[in-house]
Amino acid sequence: MMTSSRIEHDFLGEKEISNDCYYGVQTLRAKENFDITGIPIGSEPLFIKAFGFVKKAAALANRDLGILDAKKAEAIAYACDRLIAGEFTDQFISDLIQGGAGTSCNMNANEVIANLGLEYLGHQKGEYKYLHPNNDVNLSQSTNDAYPSAFRIAVYLKIGAFSHALEDLQGAFFNKGKEFDGILKMGRTQLQDAVPMTLGQEFNAFATTLGEDVLRIREASQLITEVNMGATAIGTGVNAPEGYAQLCVKYLAEISQVPVTLAADLIEATYDTGALVQLSGTLKRNAIKLSKICNDLRLLSSGPRCGLNEINLPAMQPGSSIMPGKVNPVIPEVVNQTCFYVIGADLTITMAAEAGQLQLNVMEPVIGMALFTSLQYLTKACGTLKDKCIVGITANVEHSKNLVMQSIGIVTQLNPILGYEESASIAKEALKTGKSIHEIVVIERKLITQAKWDEIYSIENLIHPKFISK
Amino acid sequence: MMTSSRIEHDFLGEKEISNDCYYGVQTLRAKENFDITGIPIGSEPLFIKAFGFVKKAAALANRDLGILDAKKAEAIAYACDRLIAGEFTDQFISDLIQGGAGTSCNMNANEVIANLGLEYLGHQKGEYKYLHPNNDVNLSQSTNDAYPSAFRIAVYLKIGAFSHALEDLQGAFFNKGKEFDGILKMGRTQLQDAVPMTLGQEFNAFATTLGEDVLRIREASQLITEVNMGATAIGTGVNAPEGYAQLCVKYLAEISQVPVTLAADLIEATYDTGALVQLSGTLKRNAIKLSKICNDLRLLSSGPRCGLNEINLPAMQPGSSIMPGKVNPVIPEVVNQTCFYVIGADLTITMAAEAGQLQLNVMEPVIGMALFTSLQYLTKACGTLKDKCIVGITANVEHSKNLVMQSIGIVTQLNPILGYEESASIAKEALKTGKSIHEIVVIERKLITQAKWDEIYSIENLIHPKFISK
Amino acid sequence: MMTSSRIEHDFLGEKEISNDCYYGVQTLRAKENFDITGIPIGSEPLFIKAFGFVKKAAALANRDLGILDAKKAEAIAYACDRLIAGEFTDQFISDLIQGGAGTSCNMNANEVIANLGLEYLGHQKGEYKYLHPNNDVNLSQSTNDAYPSAFRIAVYLKIGAFSHALEDLQGAFFNKGKEFDGILKMGRTQLQDAVPMTLGQEFNAFATTLGEDVLRIREASQLITEVNMGATAIGTGVNAPEGYAQLCVKYLAEISQVPVTLAADLIEATYDTGALVQLSGTLKRNAIKLSKICNDLRLLSSGPRCGLNEINLPAMQPGSSIMPGKVNPVIPEVVNQTCFYVIGADLTITMAAEAGQLQLNVMEPVIGMALFTSLQYLTKACGTLKDKCIVGITANVEHSKNLVMQSIGIVTQLNPILGYEESASIAKEALKTGKSIHEIVVIERKLITQAKWDEIYSIENLIHPKFISK
Amino acid sequence: MMTSSRIEHDFLGEKEISNDCYYGVQTLRAKENFDITGIPIGSEPLFIKAFGFVKKAAALANRDLGILDAKKAEAIAYACDRLIAGEFTDQFISDLIQGGAGTSCNMNANEVIANLGLEYLGHQKGEYKYLHPNNDVNLSQSTNDAYPSAFRIAVYLKIGAFSHALEDLQGAFFNKGKEFDGILKMGRTQLQDAVPMTLGQEFNAFATTLGEDVLRIREASQLITEVNMGATAIGTGVNAPEGYAQLCVKYLAEISQVPVTLAADLIEATYDTGALVQLSGTLKRNAIKLSKICNDLRLLSSGPRCGLNEINLPAMQPGSSIMPGKVNPVIPEVVNQTCFYVIGADLTITMAAEAGQLQLNVMEPVIGMALFTSLQYLTKACGTLKDKCIVGITANVEHSKNLVMQSIGIVTQLNPILGYEESASIAKEALKTGKSIHEIVVIERKLITQAKWDEIYSIENLIHPKFISK
Repeated sequence: MMTSSRIEHDFLGEKEISNDCYYGVQTLRAKENFDITGIPIGSEPLFIKAFGFVKKAAALANRDLGILDAKKAEAIAYACDRLIAGEFTDQFISDLIQGGAGTSCNMNANEVIANLGLEYLGHQKGEYKYLHPNNDVNLSQSTNDAYPSAFRIAVYLKIGAFSHALEDLQGAFFNKGKEFDGILKMGRTQLQDAVPMTLGQEFNAFATTLGEDVLRIREASQLITEVNMGATAIGTGVNAPEGYAQLCVKYLAEISQVPVTLAADLIEATYDTGALVQLSGTLKRNAIKLSKICNDLRLLSSGPRCGLNEINLPAMQPGSSIMPGKVNPVIPEVVNQTCFYVIGADLTITMAAEAGQLQLNVMEPVIGMALFTSLQYLTKACGTLKDKCIVGITANVEHSKNLVMQSIGIVTQLNPILGYEESASIAKEALKTGKSIHEIVVIERKLITQAKWDEIYSIENLIHPKFISK
Repeated sequence: MMTSSRIEHDFLGEKEISNDCYYGVQTLRAKENFDITGIPIGSEPLFIKAFGFVKKAAALANRDLGILDAKKAEAIAYACDRLIAGEFTDQFISDLIQGGAGTSCNMNANEVIANLGLEYLGHQKGEYKYLHPNNDVNLSQSTNDAYPSAFRIAVYLKIGAFSHALEDLQGAFFNKGKEFDGILKMGRTQLQDAVPMTLGQEFNAFATTLGEDVLRIREASQLITEVNMGATAIGTGVNAPEGYAQLCVKYLAEISQVPVTLAADLIEATYDTGALVQLSGTLKRNAIKLSKICNDLRLLSSGPRCGLNEINLPAMQPGSSIMPGKVNPVIPEVVNQTCFYVIGADLTITMAAEAGQLQLNVMEPVIGMALFTSLQYLTKACGTLKDKCIVGITANVEHSKNLVMQSIGIVTQLNPILGYEESASIAKEALKTGKSIHEIVVIERKLITQAKWDEIYSIENLIHPKFISK
Repeated sequence: MMTSSRIEHDFLGEKEISNDCYYGVQTLRAKENFDITGIPIGSEPLFIKAFGFVKKAAALANRDLGILDAKKAEAIAYACDRLIAGEFTDQFISDLIQGGAGTSCNMNANEVIANLGLEYLGHQKGEYKYLHPNNDVNLSQSTNDAYPSAFRIAVYLKIGAFSHALEDLQGAFFNKGKEFDGILKMGRTQLQDAVPMTLGQEFNAFATTLGEDVLRIREASQLITEVNMGATAIGTGVNAPEGYAQLCVKYLAEISQVPVTLAADLIEATYDTGALVQLSGTLKRNAIKLSKICNDLRLLSSGPRCGLNEINLPAMQPGSSIMPGKVNPVIPEVVNQTCFYVIGADLTITMAAEAGQLQLNVMEPVIGMALFTSLQYLTKACGTLKDKCIVGITANVEHSKNLVMQSIGIVTQLNPILGYEESASIAKEALKTGKSIHEIVVIERKLITQAKWDEIYSIENLIHPKFISK
Repeated sequence: MMTSSRIEHDFLGEKEISNDCYYGVQTLRAKENFDITGIPIGSEPLFIKAFGFVKKAAALANRDLGILDAKKAEAIAYACDRLIAGEFTDQFISDLIQGGAGTSCNMNANEVIANLGLEYLGHQKGEYKYLHPNNDVNLSQSTNDAYPSAFRIAVYLKIGAFSHALEDLQGAFFNKGKEFDGILKMGRTQLQDAVPMTLGQEFNAFATTLGEDVLRIREASQLITEVNMGATAIGTGVNAPEGYAQLCVKYLAEISQVPVTLAADLIEATYDTGALVQLSGTLKRNAIKLSKICNDLRLLSSGPRCGLNEINLPAMQPGSSIMPGKVNPVIPEVVNQTCFYVIGADLTITMAAEAGQLQLNVMEPVIGMALFTSLQYLTKACGTLKDKCIVGITANVEHSKNLVMQSIGIVTQLNPILGYEESASIAKEALKTGKSIHEIVVIERKLITQAKWDEIYSIENLIHPKFISK
């Protein structure tokens, strides 16, 4: 036996909908119209949750202002609470990339909430005369304020998880920095041997650079909390009662526990995507840094015999289907690729933001898709990098020290004593003959004594160089 | 009762695997290591099919060259045929973004094929001594030739579907061009009124511009057919017998019906991603054009009362949750956004291609993810645009003609008769006073006769301008 | 008679240099090695000035710490003061894009300052035993701290000019917002007629959105003030005496009047380009907004007869070589293009930042080139947009009002009274028949009285909509 | 005494112009309106030359068709010949980035040619009644056909120089490939030791990969030769006589020696920038490859003591202001940065191409700026890389061979004999104990004889591996 169905209509005509479905005619049209990614908006549960916050806040404000019946408000609040609890995400079937500036998302929410509310009130799904998706659930709202507000709240919540993962990763680098504190190694600039440093300094610097990003992302997340509830269609607030905007945002902050504030210029706030661009730019910045760090990790662990081989990454899987025993830096590699995705997504967002016209940016859905995936993937990448790579890195202490002592770069330490030009001639001879700096300086040219050499080239002085003159 | 399981091992240790699974220990490690997108490679069925082609071709070549037992070859071929038939995609669980340059994809294929083959041979899954993922299925191969070859074949097949959709769209524009043949309208440059044209010319030009892309994509797809089977690890062909490369590629072309050829320089072919970059650049070009076309469609249908309003797009869904009767150009909008995605994906590919180092580009998996999704989304977008928008477009004939006749731009036609400077002074007066060109030229200044006016400004002459002098 | 010349040498050999030149052998090598853009670093006078600040600060710190002779310090300070005064920029001949991580810039500065100092001390150019480019001018420094510090100071100073131009532009929009305060016009979403607003609101929103960028750029400029003087080669401070870093930065802040601070982690600060990426991301954000605004200005001024024609941009030049009287929105167009340049430059910076390896980012010169030009062009674009466009914009008041009153969008105002569905049916009839909303609502269907209509559709209520129920 | 001046006017008013100047009032307005880059179009001499071609071809076609006086045509041809000869580039003062879709470029050309022609005819500059910039020089043309045609011809000519430089670079790599033919070295995948190869193969592959780009660029250059002369304002050919388009293009091909052809669809050709996008995409592809090659060169020459150190790049300049004797890979570094510029410029072009609206792409000037600089810089970069780096590279033969023989990667060769799993256990032991493969396989485990070892691990077999089984 078939599932029962109902007929719904909008001003374009009628549609048959299965009675299993909480969504209605407009959602169904969206489903038919937009078949691009195959990924439904319900795959982003925080987005659905955020619609729950927004619609509940609006209903309570409308009730308080006397334009929404208390019983209807109660039904809407009930329905929203179920969305907030994470239920019914399968009813949100609009494609992540969609035309209409999010109207389909908003109507999907309106319809699901209306039908949940109808059941709460003892009615059948579709009996919209008792609780209407547009007239009641969407009251005092437009897609153009409800959608971007819900979107920003969802993004804010996702940033929270990402920041946490990034801070954990920073912590892992910091711990390795301490662990590798006294390990001497060669510093390199332009891939050429430069002067000595410690492996601890190198890992600590990774922590420092990510720590700066934690701050930048925090700043960017603050900008996201500005919402435009009460703007309705274009920011003039048409069809919203006086005081609604302020009251709605007050409720929204309470319900969501997100520190949302009302935008000062609702016309601007209704079309502006600056905060999203800023956030994406900051994610791109972070992707650049993560990619740089992973490049370094792969360089430092290159070899094992024909590369730098200063560190060992944990072996996660056999590295080759043909080369036995080969182990590859697969975790940094997957993080590099995630970073390239994020940088590409930032360009998608750039183009979408630039394409906004007049009173609305119709391209917000693809901004949403790009931001949601970037945040998701980066969060996973940070956790993966920490758990499956950083915490298990070990150092090749002797090898690293030997590289330093046989290097030419340590001639730099003799500059203050011998001057740049004499030092350069020593370096040149070392390079040409293969001799060590010690051999040329102490034994052949007798430019400094062995004692002086030992002072300058003690591990302690190589790590924490003091200014030593003649 | 629990499902039975087996123990598999690799040189990193042992893993327990459910006996439901055709994949093995290395696939399981990949699954654990790479958790970024949550999208498995099995979501791209053509990729799995292409692995079927590659592994079967290799097995037959190995058999012919006497290094693979005929029975084993038969078992491998059987397994590959099942993949080619589209079965077992659920056994391909590695994440689309993965480290290891595709080793996990390749081993996933090797393991699934080995276990399918084992069952064919009457053995249990995991009894690799009878048919080994590395020693038999991967024989004479490396990830570094099997993976990129399978990848390119999958891309080639996807291009086929895309080209088809693009040609259909081109055809729809061409048909509209014919339908709108005699409809006069204003041409615009820099959004300012220029000179008249027909709506047919405008739509025909959309067909022309997409037709050029069809050719470019065909060119790009040819570059994709160069494969490096026989290169093994880095292109030197280590561990592959003489003649294998040629024979394998011959089989591959036969089995896949894709016109693959063997790369002349296998060292280069093993690391080079130039053909993928070229293809992505061509998709980007197409995205730019589609986005431009959609921008134009949205402009031309703007209004209905406060915009250009020359054409009507089919109404696909109510356009607003607050503004009754509003219908939006949702289909062009979703195509625009898809195009922004594709342009962003091209940047991902750019960065991944640039990051290739020495003998291999380890970033090919993210190139794959970006290309697969771009091709998929563009294919869907072309179909959507055609079916849900272009074929249903209608013209506002009278309104368009009226705009032309009341415009100032038609003064251009008088240049050859009156000269640029006199024509400019007429235009200036019209702009200032609001008068029509006809009023100034014929009635007030009496610069040409009404008969001459009628000759110049007949619909026929506006559409197909003849050079008319004094 | 020929100009006299001198012979200089470095550890690669000798070079003949004209005695006119203050630069020396290493600058000459750079000139020969890097011939890409043909644009010398001296084309960026603030960069040369910033080197004056840095080298003077270092000299004074070295003097105070007793490792630089007071007379030498005096000579260096003298030379730096001349650079600070804007002199000798023609002696800075290294190409803007250069290898060596800025070594050529730094040595160009060291050499020019040494030779200026030598003349001050009564010696000939090239007599480096009295004042040496490396041993004296570069004392306690490396390219890797002097160059990025000078670069960041130059960028900071350029941001100052840019912020000023942007604030001026913001002010111009704000003034227009006030001027256009009571002018009724149609608001548009998705290029479709939405609900009424004022032209003043539209221009005021442009001011708002740019004002937010002023704040973001200020934040970004603060990050730029962190310098790494004292880091020397890789951040370990090798060859710099204790206390030097702090003292040098103190002098640097005093001399430059830029609030520079010493980075806490000199290892990280020596390779990190995060602050530059952040700044570029913020410039990109601003470019996106400026481009959006210019797109809107071009739309609103489209026509004059076949477009929206709500505003008139000042006529700056004849718009066509063939179409008489045509005037184009050339100023917004040039700003759009500048924005596309800036967005492209951000990608250059992204790639350069990602390419940094280990202890140094060798790609900073191209970051410099991209940031200097982006800042320069954006500054000019803001000034051009303000002076040659915004201040001269006029409104077509009657036309704009007529568009509103004949629109279908104003049916939205009836939602609270008639409900969404009835309103939608009115809209549908209007669209189909060409009738006005007034005709259908008041005359035909008699849904509201003329008095109610007049209340709802007064200019005052259209501009500042009140919530009006039945 | 002051230079004499003349008064010129256009429909916006009058301007005083120095009699030194061949340009006129509209050029002067452009100079005032567009002050962004400070770089005049005259800095691109091939662009001015191309305008000479275009304007001469148009004049001859107009003469033949009887609408231009023969004497006037002669004067225009004379003036064009002087531009073609490379003269008067200083009279082309419009900024590279300009609004107006190139109208200022076109009028600059029209005015300079008119005034040169006037002098040829014995008149004074500015006496346009005898030879008019619009009515005569621009006859049968519009900016919208003359400008893009001249632009494409200039680009075509620039591609010629670039292709030449790229082929030379390819040749240099090919020669090094031969020179390094027998030099054994370690191949690396994912920066991990893989299997042996020769340095010759590595350099030969660089030649191969660039050779493919030579072909792609040749293809792209063919697309550029399609021009739209005769399209006039929007492609309808308004105000151009019948047969003009064909005749003009015939002349244009003859005069320029560029194989230009007339576009089949002039409406499309007047707005389409597809060929420019394709070219830029191909340049981007080339930049990606060049950057990859330079990354490899820097890796292979890393060290000298703490890096791979397989090759030596020529020492071009002292590498550090603090580290004596340090020599850096400055030439690859400058090429990397040039590549990042080109990739950024491709994004500028992408955005500009996407922003084209309706019948014209007003953003072509910034596309021109980006393409001209990209081609210029890449041409220089290829020459620099070849002359100052590739030809002087030397190999560290012994060191490279030693790396191979002490590596673990060579265990791969034992796969066909010992199987993947045994080989893996050998690799694992080698890694753990530091022993060589030889020690474990031949001496300890006695898995193969010394004779077999010598067969497998002869230089000859390592370089050209044969399939060796038990």
